[in-house]
Amino acid sequence: MPKYLMNIVSGMRPTGQLHLGHYLGVLKKWTELQDSRNSLFFVADWHALSTSYEDKLNLRKLSIGLVKDWLSAGVNPEKATIFIQSSVKAHSELFVILNMLTPLGWLERNPTYKDQIEQLSNRDINSSGFLTYPVLQTADIILYDAHEVPIGEDQRPHLEIAREIVRRFHYLYEKEIFVEPKELLSPTPKLLGLDGRKMSKSYGNSIYLTDSSDDVWQKLRGAKTDTNRVRKTDKGNPDVCLVFDYHKEFSSLETQNEMREGCEAGAIGCVQCKKACLNSIDSTLQPMRERRDELSDSFIEDVIASGNKRANTIAEEKMRAVNSLVFGEFNS
Amino acid sequence: MPKYLMNIVSGMRPTGQLHLGHYLGVLKKWTELQDSRNSLFFVADWHALSTSYEDKLNLRKLSIGLVKDWLSAGVNPEKATIFIQSSVKAHSELFVILNMLTPLGWLERNPTYKDQIEQLSNRDINSSGFLTYPVLQTADIILYDAHEVPIGEDQRPHLEIAREIVRRFHYLYEKEIFVEPKELLSPTPKLLGLDGRKMSKSYGNSIYLTDSSDDVWQKLRGAKTDTNRVRKTDKGNPDVCLVFDYHKEFSSLETQNEMREGCEAGAIGCVQCKKACLNSIDSTLQPMRERRDELSDSFIEDVIASGNKRANTIAEEKMRAVNSLVFGEFNS
Repeated sequence: MPKYLMNIVSGMRPTGQLHLGHYLGVLKKWTELQDSRNSLFFVADWHALSTSYEDKLNLRKLSIGLVKDWLSAGVNPEKATIFIQSSVKAHSELFVILNMLTPLGWLERNPTYKDQIEQLSNRDINSSGFLTYPVLQTADIILYDAHEVPIGEDQRPHLEIAREIVRRFHYLYEKEIFVEPKELLSPTPKLLGLDGRKMSKSYGNSIYLTDSSDDVWQKLRGAKTDTNRVRKTDKGNPDVCLVFDYHKEFSSLETQNEMREGCEAGAIGCVQCKKACLNSIDSTLQPMRERRDELSDSFIEDVIASGNKRANTIAEEKMRAVNSLVFGEFNS
Repeated sequence: MPKYLMNIVSGMRPTGQLHLGHYLGVLKKWTELQDSRNSLFFVADWHALSTSYEDKLNLRKLSIGLVKDWLSAGVNPEKATIFIQSSVKAHSELFVILNMLTPLGWLERNPTYKDQIEQLSNRDINSSGFLTYPVLQTADIILYDAHEVPIGEDQRPHLEIAREIVRRFHYLYEKEIFVEPKELLSPTPKLLGLDGRKMSKSYGNSIYLTDSSDDVWQKLRGAKTDTNRVRKTDKGNPDVCLVFDYHKEFSSLETQNEMREGCEAGAIGCVQCKKACLNSIDSTLQPMRERRDELSDSFIEDVIASGNKRANTIAEEKMRAVNSLVFGEFNS
């Protein structure tokens, strides 16, 4: 495994199949980062419990499936360490310790927390675990000396809490043993579902990484376009067309221009435009399908087992340093 | 190690030397319980952080010292499992899981929490760890199928939370894998310090289990008695005398009666009464001193190592059951 100057850590919850939004928002970045950073990517199965403990998901199966999605999308176990959060007990151990020195107010005033309590009012998430989630996340990150954490805008307050916890630990124990993690913010394209709503499994409006070309076509066919364009000869406006949003992400500039001009001139119909979009999406998904065909379950399990082992080695070494600071040296 | 029908679990924080109040309130009970229950006694070093993270205590040394106090007081490692909380990572692992399903309101409404926040207003304990302390305590208990937990009155709300968490877990995961712990309440004698204030290291008013006979005498000599009794011939009132409180706990009924009558008649002076009290306290402390002399540090460390091992074996087996319920079965 190559060695770089910078470490990054990033996790994903195993709550279901990944769609193109996940690919653009997270996986594509991971596949780029793994070439220049020591990368640790983990399945956040404990975190999944904070919002999904009532769902009786088989998180083990979902975790395997998630890693399969990652590998098919190009995450490379020869380059990155891939592991399961709950298989590295040090995360919970450090969580217990950080919890003791985290002022409650930092968590209660966290704007993302307040937002989510409002947004997820249909779920019973008013739990102690949901409140203390940023503390567990801090443990996830600082155990591995992450210099950078790739995040979206909504995670900024959490990373600020992580840095504050690190500073407080250093102040209280008078020794700097952690790295203060920086955010690696990148504009995340907000790709909407094919009905114009947020991509969501329950709306059936998402294109999954596991979709066949035919699946994708069935979904694209029914997608909303410029609703003012009724006949092919009507002049369309790509800027209000959902399908064009997909072109922007998946098509070459050449194809994008061709579609824009054809649409604005009333020269290309929506079906033709969608076929071109299918091709572009397929050019992203086809390599994933091919990789996925090569991925046996036992290979995935081997990847996870060796990732768990590597992560445990790093995390346990860090915990030795933490524990000797927190509990004092112990001559035996 | 003998096997009984009932399990008990009890912990103590390693925050300093033990005094006679600890002996009467906790250790004396432990030495009785170990003869009829599968007993697990642990050093609650993670819990110690919740109030003492700012104190830079050497918790490792204090933990060893604590176990030494236990053994000298008659806790028997052939009968009870003695271990260190932070050496059994399963406590933190179960804590993470229980935290996810514990409603915040249960913790916020906990009367002991509210009391302590007021009482300890000189300390910065408004931490996330202090709020979630009953959740970690629940993990401590239910990992070992504790049927009973010996507690004082102030711990009743915490044990009620533990039972509620167990019921909620069973309800959510539709399987009963934990024991609902019952409280083993016993009236705890409130032995005051020798100056009439609460026993506390900072007041220097406590008799420690490690005190020599001479140490005890120096403390008893200066102890307050009935302040209305100025001369030996004055009639005294043992019921307002601190020293007589010690007689009640440590002297035979015969000695108690002799002192009461002598005091009330103005026949026995305070010095004589205190000498008798010293004898009684010494008859409790002397066997401890003798045992302590036999206890090498390496023996203590062996006791802890084998206790940790036994506790880990039990806790890890329980976590396998927990994890297969929470995360689903995993065929590999």
